Amino acid sequence: MKYILILLFIPFLSISQIKKEELDLMPWPQNINLTSGTFALSKSFKLNITGNPNLRIFVGATNFLRRLDGRTGLFLEQAFITKNNEVPAAELQINCVRNGKVGLNEDESYALTISSNRIMINAATDLGALHGLETLLQLLQNTSTSYYFPVVEITDSPRFTWRGLMIDAVRHFQPVDVIKRNLDAMASMKMNVFHWHLADDQGWRIEIKKHPKLTELASDGYYYTQEEIRTVVKYASERGILVVPEIDVPGHGSAILTAYPEIGSKVSNEVTYTVGRRSGIYTPTLDPTNPKTYQLLGDIFDEVCPLFPGNYFHIGGDENQGKEWDANPKIQEFKKKNGLANNHELQTYFTMKLIPMLKKHNKELMGWEEIMTKNMSKEAIIHSWKGVNESVVPGGSLIAAAKNGYKTVLSNGYYIDLMLGIQSHYLNDPIPKNIVLTAEEKARILGGEATMWSELVTPLNIDSRIWPRTAAIAERLWSNENITDLNSLHKRLKTISFRLEELGIMHLRNKDVILRNITNNQEIKALRDFSNVCEPLKNYKRNGGGKKYFMFSPLTLFADACTADAFDAYDFDIAVNNYLENKNIENQTLVTNFFRKWIAMDADLINLSANAPLIQPILPLSKNLKEISEQLLLVVENKKTVNLDVINGLLEQFNTRSPADVEVAVLASLKKLSQ
Amino acid sequence: MKYILILLFIPFLSISQIKKEELDLMPWPQNINLTSGTFALSKSFKLNITGNPNLRIFVGATNFLRRLDGRTGLFLEQAFITKNNEVPAAELQINCVRNGKVGLNEDESYALTISSNRIMINAATDLGALHGLETLLQLLQNTSTSYYFPVVEITDSPRFTWRGLMIDAVRHFQPVDVIKRNLDAMASMKMNVFHWHLADDQGWRIEIKKHPKLTELASDGYYYTQEEIRTVVKYASERGILVVPEIDVPGHGSAILTAYPEIGSKVSNEVTYTVGRRSGIYTPTLDPTNPKTYQLLGDIFDEVCPLFPGNYFHIGGDENQGKEWDANPKIQEFKKKNGLANNHELQTYFTMKLIPMLKKHNKELMGWEEIMTKNMSKEAIIHSWKGVNESVVPGGSLIAAAKNGYKTVLSNGYYIDLMLGIQSHYLNDPIPKNIVLTAEEKARILGGEATMWSELVTPLNIDSRIWPRTAAIAERLWSNENITDLNSLHKRLKTISFRLEELGIMHLRNKDVILRNITNNQEIKALRDFSNVCEPLKNYKRNGGGKKYFMFSPLTLFADACTADAFDAYDFDIAVNNYLENKNIENQTLVTNFFRKWIAMDADLINLSANAPLIQPILPLSKNLKEISEQLLLVVENKKTVNLDVINGLLEQFNTRSPADVEVAVLASLKKLSQ
Repeated sequence: MKYILILLFIPFLSISQIKKEELDLMPWPQNINLTSGTFALSKSFKLNITGNPNLRIFVGATNFLRRLDGRTGLFLEQAFITKNNEVPAAELQINCVRNGKVGLNEDESYALTISSNRIMINAATDLGALHGLETLLQLLQNTSTSYYFPVVEITDSPRFTWRGLMIDAVRHFQPVDVIKRNLDAMASMKMNVFHWHLADDQGWRIEIKKHPKLTELASDGYYYTQEEIRTVVKYASERGILVVPEIDVPGHGSAILTAYPEIGSKVSNEVTYTVGRRSGIYTPTLDPTNPKTYQLLGDIFDEVCPLFPGNYFHIGGDENQGKEWDANPKIQEFKKKNGLANNHELQTYFTMKLIPMLKKHNKELMGWEEIMTKNMSKEAIIHSWKGVNESVVPGGSLIAAAKNGYKTVLSNGYYIDLMLGIQSHYLNDPIPKNIVLTAEEKARILGGEATMWSELVTPLNIDSRIWPRTAAIAERLWSNENITDLNSLHKRLKTISFRLEELGIMHLRNKDVILRNITNNQEIKALRDFSNVCEPLKNYKRNGGGKKYFMFSPLTLFADACTADAFDAYDFDIAVNNYLENKNIENQTLVTNFFRKWIAMDADLINLSANAPLIQPILPLSKNLKEISEQLLLVVENKKTVNLDVINGLLEQFNTRSPADVEVAVLASLKKLSQ
Repeated sequence: MKYILILLFIPFLSISQIKKEELDLMPWPQNINLTSGTFALSKSFKLNITGNPNLRIFVGATNFLRRLDGRTGLFLEQAFITKNNEVPAAELQINCVRNGKVGLNEDESYALTISSNRIMINAATDLGALHGLETLLQLLQNTSTSYYFPVVEITDSPRFTWRGLMIDAVRHFQPVDVIKRNLDAMASMKMNVFHWHLADDQGWRIEIKKHPKLTELASDGYYYTQEEIRTVVKYASERGILVVPEIDVPGHGSAILTAYPEIGSKVSNEVTYTVGRRSGIYTPTLDPTNPKTYQLLGDIFDEVCPLFPGNYFHIGGDENQGKEWDANPKIQEFKKKNGLANNHELQTYFTMKLIPMLKKHNKELMGWEEIMTKNMSKEAIIHSWKGVNESVVPGGSLIAAAKNGYKTVLSNGYYIDLMLGIQSHYLNDPIPKNIVLTAEEKARILGGEATMWSELVTPLNIDSRIWPRTAAIAERLWSNENITDLNSLHKRLKTISFRLEELGIMHLRNKDVILRNITNNQEIKALRDFSNVCEPLKNYKRNGGGKKYFMFSPLTLFADACTADAFDAYDFDIAVNNYLENKNIENQTLVTNFFRKWIAMDADLINLSANAPLIQPILPLSKNLKEISEQLLLVVENKKTVNLDVINGLLEQFNTRSPADVEVAVLASLKKLSQ
């Protein structure tokens, strides 16, 4: 009774007609018809499945119920869904016409219809139905005391069939639980390809029973057993996700050659190779003239291929500089004898030999764009990755591949390890508007893939590198090409990012863990404030040409707590813009509050640093921010004549290289105020 | 240069002689000889291993380096330790005389000697050396700019040989990553037994290849594959931890009987059993008169035993109320025929049949205290668990077992799922001072075990239920019985709890995750403030006799964010005590700051609740705290004549049952102020 009485006096959020642009949907569906009315959610809410679905829909539907219940605390009565048509009268009816097959070009469409007393998800396959359930979860609304769905009709299907995320499990090993939680997050963003980078210079990460030396000598004990691989593939399949393994050859070969130096291209009889401990490009390369190379790869493919039921196998093929080949007279001789004009042709010779070895297992060969040479089979899939950093037209290989008759996938522009802002990825369309392509050529562009290279990525910080930016990439690959509004993206992302926590994604929670470590268990507020305006150095600058960090160096530093798209930088910029447009007291205060916060923060950080050595490298940048804040505070509050020299001096030295490997992300906004 | 200049102006924490009581060691070592001086840590710090250790020391030493580097950010140069005597000149020398065997009564002692330029860990076995490394990590100190270890000599060994943690993976399944991170935390607290509760009424959680129906019909898909079990056992062994599996029979049999109803004790020919969905004691019980029962258990033991190399197997044996036996005439007849006077004797008959089945696999049988009947073999190990809640002398069975010639382990008093305060567990000694036992009897008391029953425990909240309270239990079982100072415990625990994050323990980070969900992604500060004075209802009251929560009910609620030993309650009590002792303005302010915080908090919570239905159930309690705070603020600040009736009225209704399943933990402290 008391409880009820209190409810009468609290502020209420009542049901009001929601507008389409208020929905936090991502990726944005193809068609939304929002009308008036609501479907009220109660603990008796139940769902029912009909049709001929794959069993994965039962897993997905059960997870849907638990997630809905976890958000609402309604104590939903329905427990585990295990078979068709269990509750014919249920409010939520899910019908799947047929068993979906995980892979490319499967029908992933769905229609979601919410009326005031009934919800329908109709899909050709369970894969589409799973997408429908994710959309439904994103539609959840609330008043101050209850939950509901808006009355709406949605029909939806993906623009591209390849919507991928690559995780590099080599540079830093990523245990199964890291992979699983990211598969859950991918599924929530309707992504359908997980590309697993399993072998590179820094390690061999997959058990090969016939050749245990690979993991014994080249994994430091960090690898996936075949049983674990099977577990992940099953988990992915339950979420409608295809897993594509990558064994990177013939370059990036330090690990495989540590175990089997006899198939390397070095000249000496007493060659030794060692597992790479730094970033960057290594020279060890398989010997394409040695039959043993193909024997070993054949053995490896024979074990790896059956673990992955999908039809694609990525053989890498990138960044082979051919130094070992050039230095080996026997290899040079082989080239001459076989009429191979250069190392590209030699690599093509190598790659072409792999095609039938994979075809035996019903796998199509995929490789990074370097494999696209004039003699390369049109059956190969070209993975486009190079861009400005490699001094070529960004994604140029994608267009070339499509025109040359290859199927192709875009990763240039989706390199999330570059730590660039979200808009650069979001606006990177696989089919650029300024390029003219035939319908056939367009159809060869399968889609895109975010690449999480892990030189500076551990289980502690990986989620904050992948998410939420990958959600924007997922939208680019699923939604209409005209969905490009950045304000809408930022607004929706606040909710999307928060909801990722429900799936176990650690991007928010682990930030505080790193900050607590840095402060040495002191109050983290000041440090969090600072981390919210700092971003890790971009474009691999943090790693100083790959030389600063070993693969075992600590990634528990301030730069690891910071993320691309610093939380407060965006809000500060809006505040500055509003203020410059209208210098009323309200807009002024919004700006000056930031300055006061940063001034106080600097003093707090200095205090914390007395008992926290890891704060010391951060202080110079914090001091810069404090000093410019003091100056601009005087300017904005009109308390002092502007001394532009002082201000410009401060701004100029603002982001000089910091020992903390970060930059303060508000420089551009500050400059606006100093003009 | 700029960086260096700045360092000159910040407050410094210089090296000063640390006192023994300032060390945050846990469990407290047996002997500490702290002298003056320090060992300075630098990036060139290296370690070296000599002797004849088990390979696990290499894993432990490598992890030690990574943890040390993660804390300090020193970029230590040493990478992976893979063999003996790699760096003979290293500053840290670890010598293990012999290969340690994971199990009971192994030598776990170590001697750690730190001088100003050298650190030595000497141990009979690698198990002792691993403990030494944990102690060394706990000794890490810092100035404002550097890290060091104090010069000290420590010799240490455990008081009890069984220092265990049980995790119930049945009521809520706990995936492998949950188990692994808790094994890491256990090792850091020098615990050495992980008891894995794998079968109960609510599920069968271990793959049995010969009888797949067990997991097909009775696990809801949540179970460990045998490969996963092997992975966990290996992981535990690398950390010096013995794994003891539990298959609970003949009671707690709903799951096994769901798959194999034919070995149940129900009369009907058409019996059906179903997996339990609630807490509490179920009646389904194996039929001890049916030869098929032993056949199936034999098959199960034949698969389960080889997975666990240790010498112990827990068969449960608890809470069989014999209802099905009483109701079954055939079973009654069997009892008569075999001269079994009652159900206890029938259960003994059953249990005795299991002993040789396990002995075949070199396993000793262990069971909950109910198995201790007059005819029970003295080879069985008695697990003492009953206490006040079961209307018996707490831990009485432990003493009885020791006197009757049984080896025995104590869990009564270590039931961390009761959500009691830490001191009740900490002061619960396996050998109470008031009991006279012979040396032989004392030796039969192997130690103790914290029990994490999981009716209200999911991967999201489990860590905050286990830690940090289990650290206090670990100290009770390792350290001298005279180490009982609660102030010291609380002081050390602040650091110990913080450091558990390094091992992946989620107790701190997941709290905020739950709070963000409750606030519906609004600012969580007010809710966190409130959670810091609230505790989940104790002694199973939260679950209303096991009837409130199904096994699939949401555990994402305010009670799940709250923990035993509410953070602020302890500090508030100290503030109140200080104030009552000396009502100076400083002490008064410390108290009134709490009141002002709680008054503001209530207003903030009301605001948040406008857009967060899950806050509604919390408001009545917050209102109570606000109202009493307003009254007592007036009292403490002498602004008003005390109206004791009002205050006592507020206090009386203060913790009336809340819909949020928590109680405010400052009531006793508030009462002190109102007197």
